[in-house]
Amino acid sequence: MAQHIEKCDVVVIGAGPVGLLTSVCLSRWGYKVKHVDNRPVPTATGRADGIQPRTLEILHNLKLKRPVMAYNPARVFEVAFWDPAPGGKIVRTGTYPSCPSFLDARYPYTALLHQGLIERVMIADLAKTGTPLERPATITRFETNHADPAYPVEVDLKNLDSNVTTTYRTKYLFSGEGGKSFVREQLKVQVRHKDPISYVWGVMDGVVRTNFPDIKMKCTIHSDHGSIMVIPRENNMVRLYIQIASSTDPDFDPRQTATVQEVQHAAQKIFQPYTCDWDRVEWYSVYPIGQGLADKYTLDNRVFMGGDVCHTHSPKAGQGMNTAFHDAINFAWKVHHVESGFAQRSILETYETERRAVADTLLEFDNKYAALFSKTQSAAGDEKAAAQANKDFVELFKANCEFTSGFGVAYAGNIFNYTESSLSSLPQNLRSLILSHDKHEHKLRPGRVMPNSNVTRVVDANKVHLENEIPFNGSFRLFVYGGSTSSPQPGQHKLLSALSDNLLKTGSFYRRFMHKNHEQLDTHHDSDNPHSPFFSVAVTICATRPEIEIEDLPELFQAYRDRVYADDALNTPVPNARFGSHAKVGLTRNDAGDQAEGAVVVVRPDGHLGIAVKLTEGPDTVEVLEAYFSQFLQQGEWGGESGSSRFSQPQQGDMELGAHAASLKNTYIIA
Amino acid sequence: MAQHIEKCDVVVIGAGPVGLLTSVCLSRWGYKVKHVDNRPVPTATGRADGIQPRTLEILHNLKLKRPVMAYNPARVFEVAFWDPAPGGKIVRTGTYPSCPSFLDARYPYTALLHQGLIERVMIADLAKTGTPLERPATITRFETNHADPAYPVEVDLKNLDSNVTTTYRTKYLFSGEGGKSFVREQLKVQVRHKDPISYVWGVMDGVVRTNFPDIKMKCTIHSDHGSIMVIPRENNMVRLYIQIASSTDPDFDPRQTATVQEVQHAAQKIFQPYTCDWDRVEWYSVYPIGQGLADKYTLDNRVFMGGDVCHTHSPKAGQGMNTAFHDAINFAWKVHHVESGFAQRSILETYETERRAVADTLLEFDNKYAALFSKTQSAAGDEKAAAQANKDFVELFKANCEFTSGFGVAYAGNIFNYTESSLSSLPQNLRSLILSHDKHEHKLRPGRVMPNSNVTRVVDANKVHLENEIPFNGSFRLFVYGGSTSSPQPGQHKLLSALSDNLLKTGSFYRRFMHKNHEQLDTHHDSDNPHSPFFSVAVTICATRPEIEIEDLPELFQAYRDRVYADDALNTPVPNARFGSHAKVGLTRNDAGDQAEGAVVVVRPDGHLGIAVKLTEGPDTVEVLEAYFSQFLQQGEWGGESGSSRFSQPQQGDMELGAHAASLKNTYIIA
Repeated sequence: MAQHIEKCDVVVIGAGPVGLLTSVCLSRWGYKVKHVDNRPVPTATGRADGIQPRTLEILHNLKLKRPVMAYNPARVFEVAFWDPAPGGKIVRTGTYPSCPSFLDARYPYTALLHQGLIERVMIADLAKTGTPLERPATITRFETNHADPAYPVEVDLKNLDSNVTTTYRTKYLFSGEGGKSFVREQLKVQVRHKDPISYVWGVMDGVVRTNFPDIKMKCTIHSDHGSIMVIPRENNMVRLYIQIASSTDPDFDPRQTATVQEVQHAAQKIFQPYTCDWDRVEWYSVYPIGQGLADKYTLDNRVFMGGDVCHTHSPKAGQGMNTAFHDAINFAWKVHHVESGFAQRSILETYETERRAVADTLLEFDNKYAALFSKTQSAAGDEKAAAQANKDFVELFKANCEFTSGFGVAYAGNIFNYTESSLSSLPQNLRSLILSHDKHEHKLRPGRVMPNSNVTRVVDANKVHLENEIPFNGSFRLFVYGGSTSSPQPGQHKLLSALSDNLLKTGSFYRRFMHKNHEQLDTHHDSDNPHSPFFSVAVTICATRPEIEIEDLPELFQAYRDRVYADDALNTPVPNARFGSHAKVGLTRNDAGDQAEGAVVVVRPDGHLGIAVKLTEGPDTVEVLEAYFSQFLQQGEWGGESGSSRFSQPQQGDMELGAHAASLKNTYIIA
Repeated sequence: MAQHIEKCDVVVIGAGPVGLLTSVCLSRWGYKVKHVDNRPVPTATGRADGIQPRTLEILHNLKLKRPVMAYNPARVFEVAFWDPAPGGKIVRTGTYPSCPSFLDARYPYTALLHQGLIERVMIADLAKTGTPLERPATITRFETNHADPAYPVEVDLKNLDSNVTTTYRTKYLFSGEGGKSFVREQLKVQVRHKDPISYVWGVMDGVVRTNFPDIKMKCTIHSDHGSIMVIPRENNMVRLYIQIASSTDPDFDPRQTATVQEVQHAAQKIFQPYTCDWDRVEWYSVYPIGQGLADKYTLDNRVFMGGDVCHTHSPKAGQGMNTAFHDAINFAWKVHHVESGFAQRSILETYETERRAVADTLLEFDNKYAALFSKTQSAAGDEKAAAQANKDFVELFKANCEFTSGFGVAYAGNIFNYTESSLSSLPQNLRSLILSHDKHEHKLRPGRVMPNSNVTRVVDANKVHLENEIPFNGSFRLFVYGGSTSSPQPGQHKLLSALSDNLLKTGSFYRRFMHKNHEQLDTHHDSDNPHSPFFSVAVTICATRPEIEIEDLPELFQAYRDRVYADDALNTPVPNARFGSHAKVGLTRNDAGDQAEGAVVVVRPDGHLGIAVKLTEGPDTVEVLEAYFSQFLQQGEWGGESGSSRFSQPQQGDMELGAHAASLKNTYIIA
């Protein structure tokens, strides 16, 4: 029985990637997080290891990339394909970039290091914000729709050292427990298998002595003796994945296993004519993998799940941890917007719709990938079929580079992501200002990340990455492009003046969420939120840095003096464009790139594009933005004041609780 | 009196930049270092703060850049010049890059953070190698030419907490004590002042609230009320330098001082019409600066001095710490080469000749710079003269960018740095193979750093910075360029085969210093020294990465499998050259950059170029290298074996000690 009741904003179960990143985000934004994990210490070694190019950008935006890279992960730029050769040998049939240049990634490689090191980086971050991580401790009971409307979830957490159970009342419960989830089981949420086929995989990390030439590259090796995937690791280690059994095998047993020696022997046979000896094995595991997807990520928008709780799949495409990170940031900013009185509670529903659709796509890819990987293996007897299967496998790999690099995460149209059917009540003249379209060729695609670009920061002349200048601070980002008709001379910023005037007008969506006493805000150490915790503005001007005087800019932009940029830097994919940053987002109108539209690009806190609207001299641009934001913002004036606590709004949102939570009243107690 | 005698390789006095980096290098290479500092803790704040572009490259090569950058230093890309305007105000008259693009620096900015943080990075590195730093402790006596020929220097070190004095016998004593040096005084080494004029400077670090638009840039401000230099700092701080007095003033007093309030008031007047208020002052100091240069850096090649012990100057060009780092690495590798039986003891003489010449150039520049900075100030009454002085100042600044960025450190011709008069006994046909010349236009200038370039590492397809691939490991670096006539097909590497064969030939300078049992060396975790601790080889081949098979390369290069590169990466200053890395070092013979010479570029352990020699199909290339290395290498076979200690050569070098040290026999005891 519970012995003591404490209150908090969010209870997080599990200190793997998804739980830790959820905690990191919410703790930074001032929420009281109770975080437990049933393991006494972080992951010592092994497990997830691949950080994809887009995830590196996310970590950079969170200011976590530098400490991760300090562990010197291996970096994979290319994948080598090896296939059977006569005499039971193998031969390299080709190589391909793991993140080809057409994806234009800032970091066109996968970084590889073991999950425990990444956990440690996030645990260190939690320590900075004062959120303790209790371990070993586990969840033993939870109950939603409790009498206290402000804290409708009650959770019992049992410390596994002391055996003491403490009861928490919380606004949210987030489960990042991994594949075996108490919360998911209690909620009776089903995990569906996209494909009835499941596999048993062996995975081994260690130091290998070999004359195999591609041991420092990612390799898929198909041989007459079986298949292996090679992944280079930190500290001159390597990881080998070997498929041990498939449910298509006649004698399949999901509990089938193999010893270290058996796996090493199998690897030696596959590697012929190359040698493969092990100095030491750092980690070894054999585990069955089924491709599963949870039916629901939440039942009541109070108890949420993410990461492996919701989706499991083969490890071969290196997507698990990356998907978990996306789950975490998607959940975190939406809860933040609801709890701080900015957005309507209903936005929480988009966590499931957005993230479940991505997991569904991932499983579909993984399904095909795993099947082809196995097929090439079993086709060893039939040379022609094997060659075709190998070709199919390589083609599938190439076709899915965008997805596996993380740039294929595309959220479908909804309240956040503009689509042709959105904002249908807007008159046509306003709709025609919308620049963002879902077309593949278009550069401003809602639901996807915006193209990166280099610019010069005016205030200190630093060359910077524009897309990364506003950190993951929970704010919507308004990237303003001045266009080439605005001159940097005083009074000549007609488009920027119109935007400034209309955003600062009484009653505008921007003005309503400004701190009431924002003039007293101290922005010396925080240049991203001079007006409001919910908006950050960056403006890029078609001029060279010395031509721009911040004092001459319209009022709004003077408040963001550290976020004023000159579009005068070199952008390698468009080296000849005079205004390269405008060109990269598709705003230039001629080949020389010296005539460019003005625009405001609305980017969600997680970096995905919401809508892009052309700048006009009148109020039209802001009217379109008004319609966009009215889809999900709270009505009326926000009551926040700078000072005491960062988001000191009396919680209107909580008033809605009854209606939302009344639909569900359950208590879940451990058997 | 000494109570106990211990032995070590080097005693280092002072844990500022020069002492710490000396210790870091020698400790990493396995030397026993006794290091003391008379301060109880590292620098808490203030003091030196500027890390120049070339120094960032050095720190990167030492693997110390990442922990330094983790402190988020301010980064200065541009300098703004402000001059007097009517009404006692100031106006910006121009800006200029602090490291212009023609210098082609990897990191074209100055990083600014206080000296204590840099000290901490190096102290943490010392901890890793197990070298303790004893503090507070000071040197009280030293004596050279002691009876023990292997440890000819005796040093008394007194712990200032316990008052216990311990006597050390050491091979070398290195003083990095700073401007006030016990060692220098005891040696009676004179400090000469290049210019009789000296100055009193005020310097103040802190958080400033101002509407001055360039507060995040480096600025030189001349006004009718005096002059200031503005330097942005980490954590949104700023540093102001104000000249308080000059020995040209009629009432000059070198002990003149000023209060915090006086300096702040002076700054407020200079900043008009802008405001300048201080949130807090982090550090404040007023100190007289004379431009001084020590006559000698050593008397006997056993007791050495570096850093501020040897050279002092104004802080305005931000050169102090950078010069200290150069002193440290120059000293460290030369001592290493002597003590490990690689080079003749006489190379130690080049420490003083090389480093003192650079300090001399620095003082000359600083002298002109400081004089012009003062002149513009005092010329306030005469508008025309002031304008000319300001113009001269800006011109001087621009002309000296290469020097202040650190790329102007050019060592004159000597045994290490080829010059027209070197190797005069070589026949003309061999001399004609030498590609490196001292001409300004030439890209391979002896005594300077080699041009940087991007290449693709074959073994893992990583895009890397070639010039930084071999770390600061104490080895001479042989950068081999294959040239365009070598094909990557087996047996077609005629130039590379000739080089490989001749380097590995019995009796060659390379072979003589190979580990006798190098076949047993474990190179899995150290790919830079498969043969010898004194040589590291990197080879760049005119082909794309997939065309190159390491197994097909000549024997020498197979041992360096992690150091084989494809010249197929984009190099922005020569985007159209097919072989960009060859083009950047001047080896291409046509505009398309697809015809290139082969060459071997010899780079000293500190990154400065020694000699570059054209590759030939016969033994000629190695013959030229033989002549180069015979200028300073020990004769005969090196006796080192891999295994026990890293450099387990019985010290031939020590035999020469008598002759060198007999010239000096002194005992220095603290008064």
